[in-house]
Amino acid sequence: VAGEIVFVGLGLNDELGMSLRGLEEVKKANEAFIELYTSLMPNFSIKRLEEISGKRVQVVSRKELEDEDGEKILSAAKSGKVVLLVPGDPLIATTHVALRVRAEKLGIKTRIVHGASIVSAVIGLSGLHNYKFGKSVTIPFPNKTLSETPYEVIAQNKSLGLHTLCLLDIDVEKKRYLSISEALNLLLKIEEKKRQRIITDETPVVGVARAGSDGAVVKAGFLSEIIKYDFGQPPHSLVFPGRLHFMEAEALIVLANAPEEVRRLVE
Amino acid sequence: VAGEIVFVGLGLNDELGMSLRGLEEVKKANEAFIELYTSLMPNFSIKRLEEISGKRVQVVSRKELEDEDGEKILSAAKSGKVVLLVPGDPLIATTHVALRVRAEKLGIKTRIVHGASIVSAVIGLSGLHNYKFGKSVTIPFPNKTLSETPYEVIAQNKSLGLHTLCLLDIDVEKKRYLSISEALNLLLKIEEKKRQRIITDETPVVGVARAGSDGAVVKAGFLSEIIKYDFGQPPHSLVFPGRLHFMEAEALIVLANAPEEVRRLVE
Repeated sequence: VAGEIVFVGLGLNDELGMSLRGLEEVKKANEAFIELYTSLMPNFSIKRLEEISGKRVQVVSRKELEDEDGEKILSAAKSGKVVLLVPGDPLIATTHVALRVRAEKLGIKTRIVHGASIVSAVIGLSGLHNYKFGKSVTIPFPNKTLSETPYEVIAQNKSLGLHTLCLLDIDVEKKRYLSISEALNLLLKIEEKKRQRIITDETPVVGVARAGSDGAVVKAGFLSEIIKYDFGQPPHSLVFPGRLHFMEAEALIVLANAPEEVRRLVE
Repeated sequence: VAGEIVFVGLGLNDELGMSLRGLEEVKKANEAFIELYTSLMPNFSIKRLEEISGKRVQVVSRKELEDEDGEKILSAAKSGKVVLLVPGDPLIATTHVALRVRAEKLGIKTRIVHGASIVSAVIGLSGLHNYKFGKSVTIPFPNKTLSETPYEVIAQNKSLGLHTLCLLDIDVEKKRYLSISEALNLLLKIEEKKRQRIITDETPVVGVARAGSDGAVVKAGFLSEIIKYDFGQPPHSLVFPGRLHFMEAEALIVLANAPEEVRRLVE
Protein backbone atom coordinates (compact mmCIF):
# COMPACT_ATOMS: atom_id res chain seq x y z
CA VAL A 1 0.00 0.00 0.00
CA ALA A 2 1.62 3.26 -1.14
CA GLY A 3 -1.17 5.70 -0.36
CA GLU A 4 -2.13 7.89 2.50
CA ILE A 5 -5.10 9.79 3.93
CA VAL A 6 -4.56 13.30 5.23
CA PHE A 7 -7.41 14.41 7.52
CA VAL A 8 -7.63 18.17 7.09
CA GLY A 9 -9.64 20.26 9.54
CA LEU A 10 -11.80 22.92 7.89
CA GLY A 11 -12.04 24.97 11.06
CA LEU A 12 -15.15 27.09 11.44
CA ASN A 13 -17.76 28.91 9.37
CA ASP A 14 -16.50 28.81 5.76
CA GLU A 15 -13.67 27.78 3.42
CA LEU A 16 -11.33 30.40 4.95
CA GLY A 17 -11.42 28.52 8.29
CA MET A 18 -8.87 25.99 7.02
CA SER A 19 -5.16 26.46 7.83
CA LEU A 20 -2.56 27.44 5.23
CA ARG A 21 -1.05 23.96 5.63
CA GLY A 22 -4.47 22.40 4.99
CA LEU A 23 -4.78 24.27 1.69
CA GLU A 24 -1.30 23.08 0.64
CA GLU A 25 -2.34 19.48 1.35
CA VAL A 26 -5.48 19.83 -0.79
CA LYS A 27 -3.41 21.24 -3.67
CA LYS A 28 -1.02 18.28 -3.51
CA ALA A 29 -3.70 15.57 -3.23
CA ASN A 30 -4.56 13.07 -5.95
CA GLU A 31 -8.15 13.07 -4.74
CA ALA A 32 -9.98 15.38 -2.34
CA PHE A 33 -13.10 14.37 -0.41
CA ILE A 34 -15.18 16.46 1.98
CA GLU A 35 -17.88 15.69 4.53
CA LEU A 36 -20.12 18.46 5.79
CA TYR A 37 -22.58 16.61 8.03
CA THR A 38 -20.75 16.34 11.38
CA SER A 39 -20.87 20.13 11.96
CA LEU A 40 -22.68 23.03 10.33
CA MET A 41 -20.38 25.49 8.51
CA PRO A 42 -23.03 28.10 7.68
CA ASN A 43 -21.17 30.04 4.99
CA PHE A 44 -19.20 27.25 3.38
CA SER A 45 -19.02 27.05 -0.42
CA ILE A 46 -17.53 24.03 -2.18
CA LYS A 47 -17.25 26.12 -5.34
CA ARG A 48 -15.06 28.72 -3.63
CA LEU A 49 -12.97 25.94 -2.07
CA GLU A 50 -12.44 24.44 -5.53
CA GLU A 51 -11.43 27.85 -6.86
CA ILE A 52 -8.81 28.54 -4.18
CA SER A 53 -7.41 24.99 -4.24
CA GLY A 54 -7.66 24.34 -7.98
CA LYS A 55 -8.92 20.85 -7.06
CA ARG A 56 -12.22 19.10 -7.62
CA VAL A 57 -13.70 18.21 -4.23
CA GLN A 58 -16.10 15.23 -3.88
CA VAL A 59 -18.75 15.28 -1.15
CA VAL A 60 -19.09 12.11 0.90
CA SER A 61 -22.32 11.44 2.79
CA ARG A 62 -22.87 9.96 6.25
CA LYS A 63 -24.00 6.77 4.50
CA GLU A 64 -20.75 6.48 2.56
CA LEU A 65 -18.57 7.20 5.60
CA GLU A 66 -20.44 5.22 8.24
CA ASP A 67 -22.69 2.55 6.68
CA GLU A 68 -20.23 1.77 3.90
CA ASP A 69 -17.20 2.14 6.21
CA GLY A 70 -15.58 4.82 4.06
CA GLU A 71 -14.92 2.25 1.29
CA LYS A 72 -14.74 4.94 -1.42
CA ILE A 73 -12.02 6.88 0.43
CA LEU A 74 -10.09 3.80 1.51
CA SER A 75 -9.91 2.42 -2.01
CA ALA A 76 -8.74 5.76 -3.43
CA ALA A 77 -6.10 5.89 -0.69
CA LYS A 78 -4.62 2.49 -1.53
CA SER A 79 -2.55 3.95 -4.33
CA GLY A 80 -2.60 7.73 -4.00
CA LYS A 81 -2.59 10.68 -1.69
CA VAL A 82 -6.14 11.38 -0.52
CA VAL A 83 -7.32 14.35 1.49
CA LEU A 84 -10.50 14.15 3.60
CA LEU A 85 -11.75 17.60 4.58
CA VAL A 86 -13.69 17.64 7.84
CA PRO A 87 -15.39 20.54 9.70
CA GLY A 88 -13.57 21.76 12.82
CA ASP A 89 -10.64 19.73 14.16
CA PRO A 90 -10.81 16.40 12.29
CA LEU A 91 -10.57 13.80 15.04
CA ILE A 92 -13.03 15.37 17.47
CA ALA A 93 -15.83 13.48 15.64
CA THR A 94 -15.51 9.81 16.62
CA THR A 95 -16.55 8.67 13.14
CA HIS A 96 -13.24 9.94 11.74
CA VAL A 97 -11.21 8.18 14.42
CA ALA A 98 -12.94 4.96 13.31
CA LEU A 99 -12.03 5.63 9.66
CA ARG A 100 -8.44 6.38 10.68
CA VAL A 101 -8.21 3.06 12.56
CA ARG A 102 -9.58 1.16 9.53
CA ALA A 103 -7.09 2.87 7.22
CA GLU A 104 -4.07 2.11 9.42
CA LYS A 105 -5.15 -1.53 9.72
CA LEU A 106 -5.13 -1.72 5.91
CA GLY A 107 -1.59 -0.33 5.89
CA ILE A 108 -2.67 3.12 4.66
CA LYS A 109 -0.71 5.90 6.35
CA THR A 110 -2.67 8.72 7.96
CA ARG A 111 -1.76 12.26 8.96
CA ILE A 112 -3.71 15.08 10.60
CA VAL A 113 -3.81 18.78 9.78
CA HIS A 114 -5.64 20.33 12.71
CA GLY A 115 -8.27 23.04 12.46
CA ALA A 116 -10.07 25.33 14.87
CA SER A 117 -12.69 23.37 16.81
CA ILE A 118 -16.10 24.51 18.00
CA VAL A 119 -14.99 23.15 21.40
CA SER A 120 -12.11 25.59 21.99
CA ALA A 121 -13.91 28.39 20.11
CA VAL A 122 -17.00 28.35 22.36
CA ILE A 123 -14.88 27.99 25.51
CA GLY A 124 -12.78 30.99 24.43
CA LEU A 125 -15.76 33.11 23.37
CA SER A 126 -17.55 32.47 26.67
CA GLY A 127 -14.75 34.29 28.50
CA LEU A 128 -14.56 31.41 30.99
CA HIS A 129 -11.32 29.65 31.92
CA ASN A 130 -10.59 26.52 29.91
CA TYR A 131 -9.23 24.50 32.86
CA LYS A 132 -12.49 24.98 34.78
CA PHE A 133 -14.61 23.06 32.27
CA GLY A 134 -15.66 19.54 33.20
CA LYS A 135 -17.06 16.85 30.89
CA SER A 136 -18.84 18.22 27.82
CA VAL A 137 -22.07 16.90 26.31
CA THR A 138 -24.27 17.11 23.22
CA ILE A 139 -27.95 17.91 23.73
CA PRO A 140 -29.78 15.65 21.26
CA PHE A 141 -33.06 16.32 19.44
CA PRO A 142 -36.02 15.12 21.52
CA ASN A 143 -36.82 11.55 20.61
CA LYS A 144 -39.50 9.17 21.83
CA THR A 145 -37.62 9.25 25.11
CA LEU A 146 -35.97 12.40 26.41
CA SER A 147 -32.25 11.89 27.10
CA GLU A 148 -31.39 12.78 30.70
CA THR A 149 -27.65 12.65 30.06
CA PRO A 150 -27.14 16.39 29.45
CA TYR A 151 -28.97 17.24 32.69
CA GLU A 152 -26.87 14.73 34.61
CA VAL A 153 -23.61 16.01 33.15
CA ILE A 154 -24.49 19.62 34.03
CA ALA A 155 -25.49 18.52 37.55
CA GLN A 156 -22.27 16.58 38.08
CA ASN A 157 -20.10 19.45 36.84
CA LYS A 158 -22.00 21.96 38.99
CA SER A 159 -21.49 19.82 42.08
CA LEU A 160 -17.74 20.08 41.36
CA GLY A 161 -17.92 23.84 40.67
CA LEU A 162 -17.11 23.23 36.99
CA HIS A 163 -18.50 24.71 33.77
CA THR A 164 -20.27 22.58 31.14
CA LEU A 165 -19.98 23.01 27.37
CA CYS A 166 -23.11 21.78 25.58
CA LEU A 167 -23.03 21.29 21.83
CA LEU A 168 -26.50 21.26 20.28
CA ASP A 169 -27.62 18.51 17.92
CA ILE A 170 -27.74 19.10 14.18
CA ASP A 171 -29.08 17.18 11.21
CA VAL A 172 -27.50 18.87 8.21
CA GLU A 173 -29.26 16.54 5.74
CA LYS A 174 -32.69 17.48 7.12
CA LYS A 175 -31.59 21.09 7.78
CA ARG A 176 -32.61 20.80 11.45
CA TYR A 177 -30.50 22.54 14.09
CA LEU A 178 -31.38 22.57 17.77
CA SER A 179 -31.59 26.18 18.99
CA ILE A 180 -30.57 27.57 22.36
CA SER A 181 -34.16 28.14 23.41
CA GLU A 182 -35.26 24.65 22.30
CA ALA A 183 -32.33 23.12 24.22
CA LEU A 184 -33.20 25.10 27.36
CA ASN A 185 -36.83 24.01 27.09
CA LEU A 186 -35.75 20.37 26.87
CA LEU A 187 -33.61 20.78 30.00
CA LEU A 188 -36.53 22.44 31.82
CA LYS A 189 -38.68 19.41 30.98
CA ILE A 190 -36.11 17.10 32.54
CA GLU A 191 -35.96 19.41 35.57
CA GLU A 192 -39.75 19.01 36.00
CA LYS A 193 -39.21 15.29 36.29
CA LYS A 194 -36.03 15.27 38.39
CA ARG A 195 -36.68 18.31 40.60
CA GLN A 196 -33.04 18.80 41.66
CA ARG A 197 -33.14 22.56 40.92
CA ILE A 198 -30.21 22.27 38.48
CA ILE A 199 -32.05 24.06 35.65
CA THR A 200 -34.29 26.90 36.80
CA ASP A 201 -35.17 30.44 35.69
CA GLU A 202 -32.22 31.67 37.80
CA THR A 203 -29.64 29.30 36.29
CA PRO A 204 -26.75 31.26 34.70
CA VAL A 205 -26.26 30.42 31.03
CA VAL A 206 -24.01 31.59 28.17
CA GLY A 207 -25.39 31.25 24.64
CA VAL A 208 -23.03 31.32 21.64
CA ALA A 209 -24.23 31.51 18.03
CA ARG A 210 -22.17 31.19 14.84
CA ALA A 211 -18.77 30.87 16.53
CA GLY A 212 -16.03 31.62 14.02
CA SER A 213 -18.12 33.93 11.83
CA ASP A 214 -17.99 37.72 11.81
CA GLY A 215 -21.58 37.65 13.09
CA ALA A 216 -20.79 35.54 16.16
CA VAL A 217 -23.11 36.37 19.07
CA VAL A 218 -22.27 35.68 22.72
CA LYS A 219 -24.84 36.52 25.39
CA ALA A 220 -24.74 35.57 29.06
CA GLY A 221 -27.47 35.92 31.65
CA PHE A 222 -29.99 33.95 33.64
CA LEU A 223 -32.07 31.29 31.93
CA SER A 224 -35.35 33.24 31.97
CA GLU A 225 -33.66 35.95 29.87
CA ILE A 226 -31.54 33.74 27.58
CA ILE A 227 -34.45 31.45 26.67
CA LYS A 228 -36.22 34.45 25.07
CA TYR A 229 -33.12 36.03 23.49
CA ASP A 230 -32.92 36.04 19.68
CA PHE A 231 -29.60 34.43 18.76
CA GLY A 232 -30.42 34.28 15.05
CA GLN A 233 -29.23 31.61 12.64
CA PRO A 234 -27.51 28.33 13.69
CA PRO A 235 -25.23 26.82 14.82
CA HIS A 236 -25.88 27.49 18.52
CA SER A 237 -24.01 26.27 21.60
CA LEU A 238 -24.50 26.63 25.35
CA VAL A 239 -22.28 26.94 28.38
CA PHE A 240 -23.50 26.40 31.95
CA PRO A 241 -21.05 28.15 34.28
CA GLY A 242 -20.15 26.62 37.62
CA ARG A 243 -18.38 28.72 40.24
CA LEU A 244 -16.70 31.82 38.82
CA HIS A 245 -13.31 33.45 39.28
CA PHE A 246 -13.81 37.22 39.55
CA MET A 247 -12.10 37.66 36.15
CA GLU A 248 -14.62 35.26 34.64
CA ALA A 249 -17.53 37.29 36.01
CA GLU A 250 -15.90 40.44 34.62
CA ALA A 251 -15.51 38.77 31.19
CA LEU A 252 -19.17 37.65 31.16
CA ILE A 253 -20.29 41.21 31.94
CA VAL A 254 -17.99 43.02 29.48
CA LEU A 255 -17.78 40.50 26.63
CA ALA A 256 -21.15 38.71 26.89
CA ASN A 257 -23.35 41.51 28.23
CA ALA A 258 -24.27 39.58 31.40
CA PRO A 259 -26.17 41.38 34.19
CA GLU A 260 -24.08 42.55 37.18
CA GLU A 261 -25.81 39.88 39.29
CA VAL A 262 -23.50 37.18 37.86
CA ARG A 263 -20.92 38.48 40.33
CA ARG A 264 -22.77 36.57 43.05
CA LEU A 265 -21.46 33.34 41.43
CA VAL A 266 -17.90 34.34 42.27
CA GLU A 267 -16.42 31.87 44.74
CA VAL B 1 -12.35 55.25 19.46
CA ALA B 2 -12.29 54.05 15.84
CA GLY B 3 -9.90 51.13 16.12
CA GLU B 4 -10.16 47.43 16.71
CA ILE B 5 -8.10 44.46 17.83
CA VAL B 6 -8.41 41.22 15.92
CA PHE B 7 -7.09 38.26 17.92
CA VAL B 8 -5.79 35.79 15.33
CA GLY B 9 -5.01 32.21 16.34
CA LEU B 10 -1.75 30.89 14.90
CA GLY B 11 -2.79 27.28 15.34
CA LEU B 12 0.01 24.79 15.82
CA ASN B 13 3.67 24.23 14.96
CA ASP B 14 4.57 26.98 12.44
CA GLU B 15 3.32 29.92 10.37
CA LEU B 16 1.21 27.58 8.18
CA GLY B 17 -0.97 26.71 11.20
CA MET B 18 -2.95 29.96 10.83
CA SER B 19 -6.26 29.95 8.94
CA LEU B 20 -6.73 31.56 5.52
CA ARG B 21 -8.97 34.15 7.22
CA GLY B 22 -6.22 34.87 9.74
CA LEU B 23 -3.76 35.64 6.96
CA GLU B 24 -6.28 38.00 5.32
CA GLU B 25 -6.66 39.86 8.61
CA VAL B 26 -2.89 40.30 8.96
CA LYS B 27 -2.68 41.66 5.40
CA LYS B 28 -5.41 44.23 6.15
CA ALA B 29 -4.01 45.36 9.53
CA ASN B 30 -2.44 48.75 10.22
CA GLU B 31 -0.18 47.11 12.78
CA ALA B 32 0.55 43.45 13.51
CA PHE B 33 1.80 42.18 16.88
CA ILE B 34 2.67 38.62 17.88
CA GLU B 35 3.29 36.86 21.18
CA LEU B 36 5.08 33.52 21.24
CA TYR B 37 5.41 32.80 24.96
CA THR B 38 2.06 31.21 25.90
CA SER B 39 2.73 28.09 23.77
CA LEU B 40 5.74 26.67 21.98
CA MET B 41 5.45 26.65 18.17
CA PRO B 42 8.63 24.70 17.46
CA ASN B 43 9.05 25.50 13.76
CA PHE B 44 7.67 29.03 13.67
CA SER B 45 9.55 31.71 11.72
CA ILE B 46 8.58 35.38 12.00
CA LYS B 47 10.56 36.04 8.81
CA ARG B 48 8.47 33.57 6.79
CA LEU B 49 5.28 35.01 8.32
CA GLU B 50 6.38 38.49 7.21
CA GLU B 51 7.07 37.15 3.73
CA ILE B 52 3.66 35.51 3.25
CA SER B 53 1.74 38.41 4.81
CA GLY B 54 3.81 41.28 3.42
CA LYS B 55 3.52 42.88 6.87
CA ARG B 56 6.08 43.72 9.52
CA VAL B 57 5.23 41.79 12.69
CA GLN B 58 6.30 43.13 16.11
CA VAL B 59 6.97 40.68 18.94
CA VAL B 60 5.39 41.54 22.31
CA SER B 61 6.82 40.03 25.48
CA ARG B 62 5.05 38.68 28.56
CA LYS B 63 6.17 41.85 30.34
CA GLU B 64 4.51 44.09 27.76
CA LEU B 65 1.29 42.08 27.71
CA GLU B 66 0.90 41.32 31.41
CA ASP B 67 2.93 43.73 33.55
CA GLU B 68 2.27 46.70 31.28
CA ASP B 69 -1.34 45.63 30.61
CA GLY B 70 -0.86 45.52 26.83
CA GLU B 71 -0.50 49.30 26.72
CA LYS B 72 1.46 49.21 23.44
CA ILE B 73 -1.27 47.24 21.65
CA LEU B 74 -4.16 49.19 23.20
CA SER B 75 -2.71 52.54 22.18
CA ALA B 76 -2.12 51.34 18.60
CA ALA B 77 -5.72 50.07 18.52
CA LYS B 78 -7.24 53.40 19.52
CA SER B 79 -7.06 54.69 15.98
CA GLY B 80 -6.32 51.75 13.69
CA LYS B 81 -6.88 48.11 12.95
CA VAL B 82 -4.48 46.01 15.02
CA VAL B 83 -3.92 42.28 14.75
CA LEU B 84 -2.53 40.31 17.70
CA LEU B 85 -1.24 36.89 16.63
CA VAL B 86 -1.42 34.27 19.37
CA PRO B 87 -0.37 30.56 19.34
CA GLY B 88 -3.26 28.07 19.18
CA ASP B 89 -6.82 29.33 19.64
CA PRO B 90 -6.43 32.90 20.95
CA LEU B 91 -8.74 32.99 23.98
CA ILE B 92 -7.69 29.71 25.55
CA ALA B 93 -4.90 31.61 27.34
CA THR B 94 -6.53 33.67 30.10
CA THR B 95 -4.08 36.53 29.58
CA HIS B 96 -5.70 37.31 26.23
CA VAL B 97 -9.20 37.29 27.69
CA ALA B 98 -7.95 39.92 30.17
CA LEU B 99 -6.56 42.06 27.31
CA ARG B 100 -9.84 41.70 25.41
CA VAL B 101 -11.82 42.88 28.46
CA ARG B 102 -9.52 45.90 28.87
CA ALA B 103 -9.87 46.79 25.18
CA GLU B 104 -13.68 46.60 25.19
CA LYS B 105 -13.82 48.75 28.34
CA LEU B 106 -11.83 51.40 26.45
CA GLY B 107 -14.35 51.25 23.60
CA ILE B 108 -12.01 49.33 21.28
CA LYS B 109 -13.86 46.69 19.28
CA THR B 110 -12.48 43.14 19.33
CA ARG B 111 -12.93 40.16 17.06
CA ILE B 112 -11.59 36.61 17.09
CA VAL B 113 -10.19 34.47 14.29
CA HIS B 114 -9.94 31.02 15.78
CA GLY B 115 -7.04 28.63 15.29
CA ALA B 116 -6.35 24.97 16.03
CA SER B 117 -5.75 24.49 19.76
CA ILE B 118 -3.37 22.09 21.48
CA VAL B 119 -6.42 21.07 23.55
CA SER B 120 -8.50 19.62 20.70
CA ALA B 121 -5.38 18.44 18.85
CA VAL B 122 -4.11 16.27 21.72
CA ILE B 123 -7.61 14.94 22.46
CA GLY B 124 -8.02 14.00 18.79
CA LEU B 125 -4.55 12.48 18.44
CA SER B 126 -5.03 10.35 21.57
CA GLY B 127 -7.86 8.48 19.81
CA LEU B 128 -10.03 8.95 22.91
CA HIS B 129 -13.56 10.36 22.81
CA ASN B 130 -13.79 14.10 23.42
CA TYR B 131 -16.95 13.93 25.56
CA LYS B 132 -15.25 11.56 28.02
CA PHE B 133 -12.62 14.08 29.10
CA GLY B 134 -13.10 15.78 32.48
CA LYS B 135 -11.36 18.88 33.80
CA SER B 136 -7.93 19.50 32.26
CA VAL B 137 -4.81 20.67 34.06
CA THR B 138 -1.31 22.04 33.49
CA ILE B 139 1.58 20.28 35.22
CA PRO B 140 3.88 23.08 36.41
CA PHE B 141 7.66 23.04 36.78
CA PRO B 142 8.64 21.85 40.25
CA ASN B 143 8.96 24.80 42.57
CA LYS B 144 9.92 25.09 46.21
CA THR B 145 6.63 23.30 46.88
CA LEU B 146 5.34 20.59 44.57
CA SER B 147 1.83 21.38 43.27
CA GLU B 148 -0.60 18.57 44.11
CA THR B 149 -3.32 19.95 41.84
CA PRO B 150 -2.52 17.80 38.78
CA TYR B 151 -2.60 14.64 40.90
CA GLU B 152 -5.91 15.66 42.44
CA VAL B 153 -7.47 16.47 39.06
CA ILE B 154 -6.39 13.10 37.63
CA ALA B 155 -7.73 11.34 40.74
CA GLN B 156 -11.09 13.12 40.56
CA ASN B 157 -11.49 12.39 36.84
CA LYS B 158 -10.54 8.74 37.34
CA SER B 159 -13.12 8.35 40.09
CA LEU B 160 -15.70 9.51 37.53
CA GLY B 161 -14.30 7.24 34.79
CA LEU B 162 -13.11 10.30 32.83
CA HIS B 163 -9.90 11.03 30.90
CA THR B 164 -7.54 13.87 31.88
CA LEU B 165 -5.66 16.11 29.47
CA CYS B 166 -2.43 17.43 31.04
CA LEU B 167 -0.58 20.25 29.35
CA LEU B 168 3.06 20.50 30.43
CA ASP B 169 4.58 23.74 31.60
CA ILE B 170 6.84 25.76 29.32
CA ASP B 171 9.07 28.77 29.76
CA VAL B 172 9.81 29.91 26.22
CA GLU B 173 12.03 32.79 27.41
CA LYS B 174 14.28 30.40 29.36
CA LYS B 175 13.87 27.63 26.72
CA ARG B 176 12.65 25.19 29.39
CA TYR B 177 9.94 22.70 28.50
CA LEU B 178 8.65 20.06 30.89
CA SER B 179 9.01 16.63 29.27
CA ILE B 180 6.68 13.65 29.57
CA SER B 181 9.16 11.72 31.68
CA GLU B 182 9.82 14.69 33.98
CA ALA B 183 6.08 15.20 34.42
CA LEU B 184 5.52 11.51 35.24
CA ASN B 185 8.37 11.62 37.77
CA LEU B 186 6.76 14.64 39.46
CA LEU B 187 3.44 12.78 39.68
CA LEU B 188 5.19 9.71 41.13
CA LYS B 189 6.68 11.94 43.84
CA ILE B 190 3.23 13.16 44.79
CA GLU B 191 2.01 9.55 44.78
CA GLU B 192 4.75 8.68 47.31
CA LYS B 193 3.28 11.27 49.62
CA LYS B 194 -0.44 10.65 49.01
CA ARG B 195 -0.40 6.88 48.52
CA GLN B 196 -3.79 6.68 46.79
CA ARG B 197 -2.45 4.44 44.00
CA ILE B 198 -3.55 6.94 41.31
CA ILE B 199 -0.12 7.09 39.64
CA THR B 200 1.73 3.77 39.58
CA ASP B 201 3.86 1.77 37.15
CA GLU B 202 0.62 0.18 35.87
CA THR B 203 -1.21 3.47 35.22
CA PRO B 204 -2.22 3.79 31.55
CA VAL B 205 -0.81 6.92 29.90
CA VAL B 206 -0.82 8.48 26.43
CA GLY B 207 2.11 10.73 25.54
CA VAL B 208 1.85 13.20 22.65
CA ALA B 209 4.80 15.15 21.28
CA ARG B 210 4.81 17.97 18.71
CA ALA B 211 1.06 17.88 17.95
CA GLY B 212 0.39 19.63 14.67
CA SER B 213 3.80 18.95 13.12
CA ASP B 214 4.59 16.25 10.56
CA GLY B 215 6.76 14.62 13.20
CA ALA B 216 3.98 14.31 15.79
CA VAL B 217 4.46 11.26 18.03
CA VAL B 218 1.66 9.54 19.93
CA LYS B 219 2.48 6.59 22.17
CA ALA B 220 0.21 4.87 24.67
CA GLY B 221 1.09 2.28 27.26
CA PHE B 222 1.61 1.79 30.97
CA LEU B 223 3.60 4.34 32.95
CA SER B 224 6.68 2.14 33.46
CA GLU B 225 7.07 1.98 29.66
CA ILE B 226 6.08 5.57 28.77
CA ILE B 227 8.40 7.12 31.37
CA LYS B 228 11.37 5.60 29.52
CA TYR B 229 10.09 6.26 25.97
CA ASP B 230 12.01 8.79 23.86
CA PHE B 231 9.42 11.33 22.64
CA GLY B 232 12.07 13.69 21.22
CA GLN B 233 11.80 17.46 21.07
CA PRO B 234 9.09 19.52 22.86
CA PRO B 235 6.27 20.40 23.23
CA HIS B 236 4.95 17.34 25.08
CA SER B 237 1.49 16.62 26.48
CA LEU B 238 -0.05 13.78 28.47
CA VAL B 239 -3.41 12.08 28.67
CA PHE B 240 -4.49 9.85 31.55
CA PRO B 241 -7.31 7.62 30.29
CA GLY B 242 -10.21 6.75 32.56
CA ARG B 243 -12.58 3.93 31.60
CA LEU B 244 -12.44 3.03 27.91
CA HIS B 245 -15.05 2.34 25.25
CA PHE B 246 -13.91 -0.66 23.17
CA MET B 247 -13.36 1.67 20.18
CA GLU B 248 -11.07 3.81 22.33
CA ALA B 249 -8.98 0.76 23.28
CA GLU B 250 -8.81 -0.20 19.60
CA ALA B 251 -7.66 3.34 18.68
CA LEU B 252 -4.95 3.31 21.39
CA ILE B 253 -3.63 -0.01 20.07
CA VAL B 254 -3.75 0.84 16.34
CA LEU B 255 -2.95 4.56 16.39
CA ALA B 256 -0.79 4.89 19.52
CA ASN B 257 0.91 1.49 19.58
CA ALA B 258 -0.51 0.57 23.00
CA PRO B 259 -0.06 -2.99 24.30
CA GLU B 260 -3.11 -5.31 23.97
CA GLU B 261 -3.46 -5.18 27.78
CA VAL B 262 -5.18 -1.76 27.56
CA ARG B 263 -8.30 -3.72 26.61
CA ARG B 264 -8.72 -4.57 30.30
CA LEU B 265 -9.65 -0.89 30.85
CA VAL B 266 -12.77 -1.32 28.71
CA GLU B 267 -15.87 -0.86 30.84
